[in-house]
Amino acid sequence: VARAVDVPELVEQARAGRPRAVARLISLVEDAHPALREVMAALAPHTGGAHVIGLTGSPGVGKSTSTSALVKALRGRELRVGVLAVDPSSPFSGGALLGDRVRMQDHALDPGVYIRSMATRGHLGGLSWSTPQALRVLDAAGCDVVIVETVGVGQSEVEIAGMADTTVVLLAPGMGDGIQAAKAGILEIGDVFVVNKADRDGADATVRDIRHMISLGEARAPGDWRPPVVKTVASREEGLDDLLTALDKHRAWLGETGHLRERRLRRAADEVEAIAMTVLRERMGDLRHGAALDSLAASVVDGRTDPYAAADQLVDAVTATAADAR
Amino acid sequence: VARAVDVPELVEQARAGRPRAVARLISLVEDAHPALREVMAALAPHTGGAHVIGLTGSPGVGKSTSTSALVKALRGRELRVGVLAVDPSSPFSGGALLGDRVRMQDHALDPGVYIRSMATRGHLGGLSWSTPQALRVLDAAGCDVVIVETVGVGQSEVEIAGMADTTVVLLAPGMGDGIQAAKAGILEIGDVFVVNKADRDGADATVRDIRHMISLGEARAPGDWRPPVVKTVASREEGLDDLLTALDKHRAWLGETGHLRERRLRRAADEVEAIAMTVLRERMGDLRHGAALDSLAASVVDGRTDPYAAADQLVDAVTATAADAR
Repeated sequence: VARAVDVPELVEQARAGRPRAVARLISLVEDAHPALREVMAALAPHTGGAHVIGLTGSPGVGKSTSTSALVKALRGRELRVGVLAVDPSSPFSGGALLGDRVRMQDHALDPGVYIRSMATRGHLGGLSWSTPQALRVLDAAGCDVVIVETVGVGQSEVEIAGMADTTVVLLAPGMGDGIQAAKAGILEIGDVFVVNKADRDGADATVRDIRHMISLGEARAPGDWRPPVVKTVASREEGLDDLLTALDKHRAWLGETGHLRERRLRRAADEVEAIAMTVLRERMGDLRHGAALDSLAASVVDGRTDPYAAADQLVDAVTATAADAR
Repeated sequence: VARAVDVPELVEQARAGRPRAVARLISLVEDAHPALREVMAALAPHTGGAHVIGLTGSPGVGKSTSTSALVKALRGRELRVGVLAVDPSSPFSGGALLGDRVRMQDHALDPGVYIRSMATRGHLGGLSWSTPQALRVLDAAGCDVVIVETVGVGQSEVEIAGMADTTVVLLAPGMGDGIQAAKAGILEIGDVFVVNKADRDGADATVRDIRHMISLGEARAPGDWRPPVVKTVASREEGLDDLLTALDKHRAWLGETGHLRERRLRRAADEVEAIAMTVLRERMGDLRHGAALDSLAASVVDGRTDPYAAADQLVDAVTATAADAR
């Protein structure tokens, strides 16, 4: 028998700012604990307050240093900050610590910062299925900002854009990132572009490249968002004010134009749909271990029915299970 | 409006051996034509007669030459043969013709042979979703043997083993295939192993390697199938009698031991389940374009409900749709 969980108590403690309660709630989510549904129901009324920032970029552009510097800047404004690191190479994820001057350890004892590394299991290189739920925990726990850091390879950068209110794309000079970005379609997901390591040669050229490519993008109507390009040297905490200003402006634009609600509606719809598919798949699995699917398969093998008609019957059986459960 | 299809007439013609009717039925399946369900229902009573042989191997081992030689040998027995080529590099798939001495053109005018290349769309490098349905068309059309040829990379070789009664793994001497085979888990899916190009140096060593590895496999009970290793030179049509004998023996063993039914039941269950999930996903898509999912998403964004409770409601809505449809 699993240890009983006092969900209302945990949620109350998390909202009061107890890091252990927050950590426990995220663990319940990650482990798909039987109390998961109760947890999500208890959190729901307290969600929606956090500004969710997705931060992505190729390896080597300084993502973790930038995240750390951004956390520090936000803390300077007395904001509560959550970090979900979905980057397997991130030092926050338990990987090797990089030689960055600013490290997450700076924040380890700060009660206003929650840091959590998320496993990427079940979703090769992409975001874990539990990332949206962990995000809800941090949101409900009173974080003003939640940063989701992912390495910008393959699928995860597109996923993060679906999950975040504001997507920050990090680049560095002289890495051919400008051209790479265009290829990877990263231009379309970036709400704010950051050229980090801006003290290096070629920083201005990289900024110009990105600006040029943004201007080449599809014609924008007046009032549309034009992604700003910000220069930072995260390791020296330079340019963070400009970044915060850009983030504030985007957040304000989202709110004023109704895009915030639109993005969040789409995100919620995707999430609900994915969970519903999982529920139906599980019910089908139960039917498989029962006899329903076996007898349908026998009908198909014997030529008494075809796979499509059998599938309809299976859907009906799943349906009946759902009706019984009510 | 799509052109009306006289399904009973098409099926009758296909069963009478008209290649154009067979081709048209497979096209209806591949295009997911509105008549698809009617086609599958009409075919069902006539399926189950064909011996389905999966043929797989790395590029360069001579898959297409072997398929062609095998077709010729089966035709020598007056058997009707179908070929589904899911190998993008196969000459049957419309790719460049190789310099093989025996080519599929040999069979182009033979009314006892159906050859069809299947697109691999929607399933990177793997079998198309419509492959099992195309297989049913050839089966119902009266083919005694259906050969499904796939290139042995990635996922497709495992998929083919799930789909075939007998899986033939093709190897060639001196390609390090023996070791590669073990690595790729190809040993576990092979019911019959063929060392093609057996006139080359190292053929006997390759045969020994495979036999050795088979013997290292999990302990077999008496009566279990022990995969034979056959040597062929497909380009000179040598060794085909041995291959036919091995295929016959495996088919007989499958029938006598009940494994044939077991394999086909599992295959049918997988197929029915996959179709049912697609049906449910489509219904959910309809709800998305309707208002149901939108209003659930709004409840989640407003914190009136959580994604799991909303998903339950969505499942109920899908369920109600199913009940209405009855």
